[in-house]
Amino acid sequence: MTIEKVQIVEKIFEANDQVAAQTQTQLTNSGVFSINIMASPGAGKTSVILKTISKLSGKLRMGVIEGDTAPVTIDSDKVMAMGIPAVQINTGGQCHLDAVMIDSALKHFDLNQLDLIIVENVGNLICPASFKIGTHANVVISSIPEGDDKPYKYTNIYRGIDVLLINKIDLMPYIDFRMDYFQQGVEILNPGLTTFQVSCKTEEGFDRWIDWISTRVSEFKNKTANA
Amino acid sequence: MTIEKVQIVEKIFEANDQVAAQTQTQLTNSGVFSINIMASPGAGKTSVILKTISKLSGKLRMGVIEGDTAPVTIDSDKVMAMGIPAVQINTGGQCHLDAVMIDSALKHFDLNQLDLIIVENVGNLICPASFKIGTHANVVISSIPEGDDKPYKYTNIYRGIDVLLINKIDLMPYIDFRMDYFQQGVEILNPGLTTFQVSCKTEEGFDRWIDWISTRVSEFKNKTANA
Repeated sequence: MTIEKVQIVEKIFEANDQVAAQTQTQLTNSGVFSINIMASPGAGKTSVILKTISKLSGKLRMGVIEGDTAPVTIDSDKVMAMGIPAVQINTGGQCHLDAVMIDSALKHFDLNQLDLIIVENVGNLICPASFKIGTHANVVISSIPEGDDKPYKYTNIYRGIDVLLINKIDLMPYIDFRMDYFQQGVEILNPGLTTFQVSCKTEEGFDRWIDWISTRVSEFKNKTANA
Repeated sequence: MTIEKVQIVEKIFEANDQVAAQTQTQLTNSGVFSINIMASPGAGKTSVILKTISKLSGKLRMGVIEGDTAPVTIDSDKVMAMGIPAVQINTGGQCHLDAVMIDSALKHFDLNQLDLIIVENVGNLICPASFKIGTHANVVISSIPEGDDKPYKYTNIYRGIDVLLINKIDLMPYIDFRMDYFQQGVEILNPGLTTFQVSCKTEEGFDRWIDWISTRVSEFKNKTANA
């Protein structure tokens, strides 16, 4: 029984990774750069996405995929209210998005009309780390109120990501958060990781994150145009 | 393949629930009241446990089981530094504790020397909701910085619990959190749920939570003594 279960789990990962690779090829061929945003519940995924959309509006053509465990459209409604196409995925209680879900969601977009797709994964620091979804970049958002010990406790989510946002830095005066200790923990898992300290509320540090996306999308466009 | 998978998942739940029922009987027969604490990463599970231990020290004989996805002893070290026996469970990346893990951990305690066992589940708002671990009461800790929309997005975790702590209320002045909206969401899922607004930092509201535990342990002792 244990062996049988392990084999099925391996098959699931393998099948998922195959679909993820196909998805990435499809996005690349369409010239659409894509980002997977992962975080705890309440770290500020939706707020970061809304602020990012607002900053890049008129400069990039964007789409958003919203992952939730329940059939709620709170987040996708907010995105669509800003005039950005959004697709809601209800995982039916599952603790992460997977490649097949993204593949299905992409059918609802006209990829030739987009430069950037942002995926908001399910709020969870554990499960999303194990499932590739085919995006070009993986981003984790940590937040000051979560505490400075998270990289020591939830190690897998910080490995293999491309960018870390440390959000809610406006709350630093009210919370005991040792930034050095936090960053040392991340450094062990992902040396030299690109990290931005930001606040969605005050917009502090937000421009550097926007510069990073803009640069990555430009580089991607140049590369795919020359391919 | 899908059917095979579903059958295995059902078997896992069934086997888990059987072990959980045995564990609860064992704890009841030993006169040990037990609490399962669930929350997002960083909502304050460890802080609530440490403060609870400190308040009940000398009044109740306590033990703590700490669940983590990584082999770290940060939390159990803090508990043991307060002179309270603690057992660390490393789930090996799994996003929740299960009944077998608790059964194994209980072997490390002398149950006849305890009145209360507090279990800190893995930081996760999704997976722990599906796995009974055999405790007498289930508690969720929410926190103000996580945002007021969580009951609308992570519905399952609020169903069937006995107590909700709303932690970090000292941060209310700095965060847009509509307490009414949050509580309405919870009320739909779990009508009349016992709820305490607390701050581990300022201790505001904490005595009501301590009263709740003390009363429950007393009632439990009386009931099991008369059985």
